[in-house]
Amino acid sequence: MTLKGNCLIAQSGGPTAVINNSICGLIKGSLRYNNIQNIYGSLFGIKGVFNEELIDLRQEKRETIDGLRFTPGPALGSCRHKIKDDDYERLLSLFKRYNIRYFFYVGGNDSMDTANKIHKLAQDTRYDLQVIGVPKTVDNDLSHTDHCPGYGSAAKYAATVVMETGIDLQGILASSDVVITEIMGRNAGWLPAATALAKNNEEDAPNLIYVPEVPFDKTRFLADVEKVYKKLGYVYIVVSEGIRDAEGNYLAAEKTKDAFGHVKLGNGAANALKDMINEHMQLKIRCNILGSSQRSAMHYASRVDASEAYMVGAEAVKLASRGLSGVMVTLERSQSDIYYCKTGYVELQKVANHERKMPLSMINKEYNFVTQEFIAYARPLIEGNVSVPMKRGLPDYVVLDGYKKYNSRSRKPAS
Amino acid sequence: MTLKGNCLIAQSGGPTAVINNSICGLIKGSLRYNNIQNIYGSLFGIKGVFNEELIDLRQEKRETIDGLRFTPGPALGSCRHKIKDDDYERLLSLFKRYNIRYFFYVGGNDSMDTANKIHKLAQDTRYDLQVIGVPKTVDNDLSHTDHCPGYGSAAKYAATVVMETGIDLQGILASSDVVITEIMGRNAGWLPAATALAKNNEEDAPNLIYVPEVPFDKTRFLADVEKVYKKLGYVYIVVSEGIRDAEGNYLAAEKTKDAFGHVKLGNGAANALKDMINEHMQLKIRCNILGSSQRSAMHYASRVDASEAYMVGAEAVKLASRGLSGVMVTLERSQSDIYYCKTGYVELQKVANHERKMPLSMINKEYNFVTQEFIAYARPLIEGNVSVPMKRGLPDYVVLDGYKKYNSRSRKPAS
Repeated sequence: MTLKGNCLIAQSGGPTAVINNSICGLIKGSLRYNNIQNIYGSLFGIKGVFNEELIDLRQEKRETIDGLRFTPGPALGSCRHKIKDDDYERLLSLFKRYNIRYFFYVGGNDSMDTANKIHKLAQDTRYDLQVIGVPKTVDNDLSHTDHCPGYGSAAKYAATVVMETGIDLQGILASSDVVITEIMGRNAGWLPAATALAKNNEEDAPNLIYVPEVPFDKTRFLADVEKVYKKLGYVYIVVSEGIRDAEGNYLAAEKTKDAFGHVKLGNGAANALKDMINEHMQLKIRCNILGSSQRSAMHYASRVDASEAYMVGAEAVKLASRGLSGVMVTLERSQSDIYYCKTGYVELQKVANHERKMPLSMINKEYNFVTQEFIAYARPLIEGNVSVPMKRGLPDYVVLDGYKKYNSRSRKPAS
Repeated sequence: MTLKGNCLIAQSGGPTAVINNSICGLIKGSLRYNNIQNIYGSLFGIKGVFNEELIDLRQEKRETIDGLRFTPGPALGSCRHKIKDDDYERLLSLFKRYNIRYFFYVGGNDSMDTANKIHKLAQDTRYDLQVIGVPKTVDNDLSHTDHCPGYGSAAKYAATVVMETGIDLQGILASSDVVITEIMGRNAGWLPAATALAKNNEEDAPNLIYVPEVPFDKTRFLADVEKVYKKLGYVYIVVSEGIRDAEGNYLAAEKTKDAFGHVKLGNGAANALKDMINEHMQLKIRCNILGSSQRSAMHYASRVDASEAYMVGAEAVKLASRGLSGVMVTLERSQSDIYYCKTGYVELQKVANHERKMPLSMINKEYNFVTQEFIAYARPLIEGNVSVPMKRGLPDYVVLDGYKKYNSRSRKPAS
């Protein structure tokens, strides 16, 4: 039913702490599947195909492959690159040249759209190719899956930082009155919402959480801040980088757009809120901008998340071996009291370009915190720690030999 | 030689991840020393004395005291409060009222000045009081000690975040070209310098480090950025919040000053550099502002640092039991190849208000990185991990019962 041939593994977009667990699952699954001959890794996402920078993952040392389970960031390299319509034929001809019969693409909703287009073109042109999407995103915004690998680890890290910096804020008189911590999440607030897991008591951080699913209202915000400050003497605010006003304008918008036409956000939502408060009240405000640390904090990853990331990678090969194509692996949560996820799958076209936002039932009526429904959803995803191998006091992360050799980014600066 | 009486423990200024290890060492030392009767904790630093908010630490549960070894932030509360000259007599009269004969003050150089003044006033007025300073600061800027408890953990966390976000920067094409991570350190660059520990190869982050010990020169900086970018295709910059130009002006200065007359720094050094680069080159720049997470990341503390923080607390009681006063505990590094620190002590007046900066021999000639001498100094301080007790996926930090009950900050908002 399925053909003997080569497979191609690529990752796309922003990484997660555990994305290489999926790569590891894909490699190990491919090593076990007889119909897969060469296991190619595409360097820097889909660009590696255009540049014909494909590395042979069978040549990598066993300990490097194992080390991927403890290494954050894109081990194969990644890119943000929108493929133009007339690029797809060239892409497919390159697939043919390398006898690629299995294409595994680890990414978010943009990537699932790309994967879907390749899948369709292969079908239309009767080229036998099986395309399987593997979900990843700290934003947790892919539809048709209970959650996305990468989210749990980012959530655990962000919640811990908020817990720790909240203790700091509470404990020091005559220092900051307000802390604003800005968390990733352009259009979906899953990650900032997860910092609510840090809160055990009313006085604990975070006191207020603003997500992009509901319009941000300045008057209501200032009233929220004033109310908490009067009660506690300090205010800990978590804000999504992507909050927007009632007209849909990002509070932190920059003028440039990225390759997908998305508006670029500066490190600006926290500073925008800081300015708002400063106009209104005399308070000392500190902004913590966690930035890219949120999607790379393997030093504090969730064990549940790391395991699931591996599982979806391995499962992708199984789906391919069953002859499936044009699908993405999903996670399905069991309905029992004890948390458990098994894998499923969904057609790529159903997830392509869709952003799953938080339902209103997970956001409180005041639009400034989450509900218990969200807590129950998110809590199991951050459980367990990953013991990262250490060397001289720091994580001992691995680098693929093929990546070292071909590092496109260092060979070709854009300027 | 020493009197029977009560002891008072207070912490001051910004906390560290491991500051409560020192509190724990002080409590356990005091419990073992027969001349110490009541063990008072002063809530919110020295303010707790003025407000007579002293909690009885003998009443705390054993497991809470033990839990201090795994809990960041100021467990007793802290403050930034400059004591006025005419406050000292009132302070001493309150010490007398509570029969305080031992005063242990955990803090930085401002606090050592306060401790020294109390020590001197007690001597001048013939009140038998033993004052022992216990060092703490993520800035590592106390003199006469090899290093300061709190520094190693902040260094380990900052270096790890730079390592992880560096992998992220290197790996994603067409995303950020430049990452600027802003690290604490107003006048001393020890902490930003420590991120150099993350670098194993030339292409690794950080590529450039700017510390406040040497004047920041815009022209040289832009040339540095251009040079690295041309070579690698990206630039990872670490900058101290306190960098200044040749005239001594902070790049990130705000208009307000704190209680000690220190200029307040906004989250601004990184953004100042971002603006400089943007004027000069078309590069995509991301700023990570780690903020207060650096001084509270117990989830990733250094075991060496946590142990030493406990040791200096316990040692303070021993020094008091030997009849000493007006001294601060220090750490003395052995000259052998294997890292080992024992404790010593120094007169408070020698450390009061002094800031120990990085020697020029630890900064490279180009003023944009550290030397091997610094690496050799800092490396041992980040070794080993602390296993923090976990609960439902997050750290299970403790709160002192006395602190819960008296939480001044929530009872008395400033407005």
